[in-house]
Amino acid sequence: MKFRNIVMAGAMFASVCAVEAQVEVKHLQPNEKSPIANGVWAGDTLYLSGQLADPVTPADPAKGTAAVYGDTKAQAFSALTKIQGLLKAQGLDMKDVVKMTVFLAGDPEKGGKLDFSGLQASYTQFFGTKDQPNKPARSAMQVAALAAPWALVEIEVIAVKSK
Amino acid sequence: MKFRNIVMAGAMFASVCAVEAQVEVKHLQPNEKSPIANGVWAGDTLYLSGQLADPVTPADPAKGTAAVYGDTKAQAFSALTKIQGLLKAQGLDMKDVVKMTVFLAGDPEKGGKLDFSGLQASYTQFFGTKDQPNKPARSAMQVAALAAPWALVEIEVIAVKSK
Amino acid sequence: MKFRNIVMAGAMFASVCAVEAQVEVKHLQPNEKSPIANGVWAGDTLYLSGQLADPVTPADPAKGTAAVYGDTKAQAFSALTKIQGLLKAQGLDMKDVVKMTVFLAGDPEKGGKLDFSGLQASYTQFFGTKDQPNKPARSAMQVAALAAPWALVEIEVIAVKSK
Repeated sequence: MKFRNIVMAGAMFASVCAVEAQVEVKHLQPNEKSPIANGVWAGDTLYLSGQLADPVTPADPAKGTAAVYGDTKAQAFSALTKIQGLLKAQGLDMKDVVKMTVFLAGDPEKGGKLDFSGLQASYTQFFGTKDQPNKPARSAMQVAALAAPWALVEIEVIAVKSK
Repeated sequence: MKFRNIVMAGAMFASVCAVEAQVEVKHLQPNEKSPIANGVWAGDTLYLSGQLADPVTPADPAKGTAAVYGDTKAQAFSALTKIQGLLKAQGLDMKDVVKMTVFLAGDPEKGGKLDFSGLQASYTQFFGTKDQPNKPARSAMQVAALAAPWALVEIEVIAVKSK
Repeated sequence: MKFRNIVMAGAMFASVCAVEAQVEVKHLQPNEKSPIANGVWAGDTLYLSGQLADPVTPADPAKGTAAVYGDTKAQAFSALTKIQGLLKAQGLDMKDVVKMTVFLAGDPEKGGKLDFSGLQASYTQFFGTKDQPNKPARSAMQVAALAAPWALVEIEVIAVKSK
């Protein structure tokens, strides 16, 4: 095989590489009634939708009682647990979170201020621990309101499948 | 050609691949006076700037009347239509949106609350339809205010050119 | 070397390419006490945490004076300078910023409104200049509050190492 052929073969393989480098997109939208996806894969990057808490105590229509969602700490723990579940279903885990944005609503129990220490109390159980030392890049702020009137915390993450 | 040569060629092609895998960045900034880009390509990922609505009725200096921007539903429809136009100009469309963030301002007509159903009424015309079943990962919340005093909706998206 | 061998070699190199295309993740978390990373590399993409300003005048415990952080313009300049330092430490610079999100708190000096022109006065010193013409995709809005009570500006960016 002469050098000319090696170059030709190289060009051939380089074009194969370009094809490999293109991005495969996969929408995770198991719930037909939901207007948004749970998440979307773009290549090795997984964008998850912002997660609100699940109720600590579900509503009981028989008793006429409303769902109880708890304070910022409880809601942050619930939202992070949901995120962990969504990641695990995709073969990832909290260690793979590269970026997080936390949207907090003012807590009526705190005079309408954000409960930053409540957020941190739950967050630090998942990130920067002995077993899971990775920490994401993060922004956190108080917004005027979240989509549900009871919601004190919404958390969105970007996770990446790494080598 | 001996195995040693194949390995050498392989190393050569692998380095070609690494070059191919690097990211080409392209700034879409046609308006010299705008302080921000319309969007930026990073490889196959397109980041668009947050979009506000265009006016339903432009200002009329002759009559001294201000521009009319409409309610949350009208502004969401306008912002999404602008996003669709920006995507199409780049060879993409709404199906290629992988992540969306919606920033809503409180609607004076709703007592300063966010008009979530107004947002959804326009959003669902573009995502999760029979013709365009893809839905993005999304976060949506009410902020204190947007950059323009009349603005009720700002929408930013990340779109990806997929295989 | 026969064509069959070229094809076999091609398949071999293509699989090498697939490996090359996978994403290497690197967490920048030099400060053990910080609950978040300064930033996270995911392949050629660098996600930085939201940056608040450094004080214009640090607190003086001896005199019992609090730190002074300045107005929106001063805080934006400080946050952008910190971002530039973080980027340079990673071999990048402001030209490599592809996406920015600006979270502004209402300025008490402006009647609790966002000081958009203060933001722009500092922002335009870093982006769209003669020396650095690149502008990022950007969203900017006023939130209810940032993590620190004195904070008027939080800025997060995504930067990309380009060809």
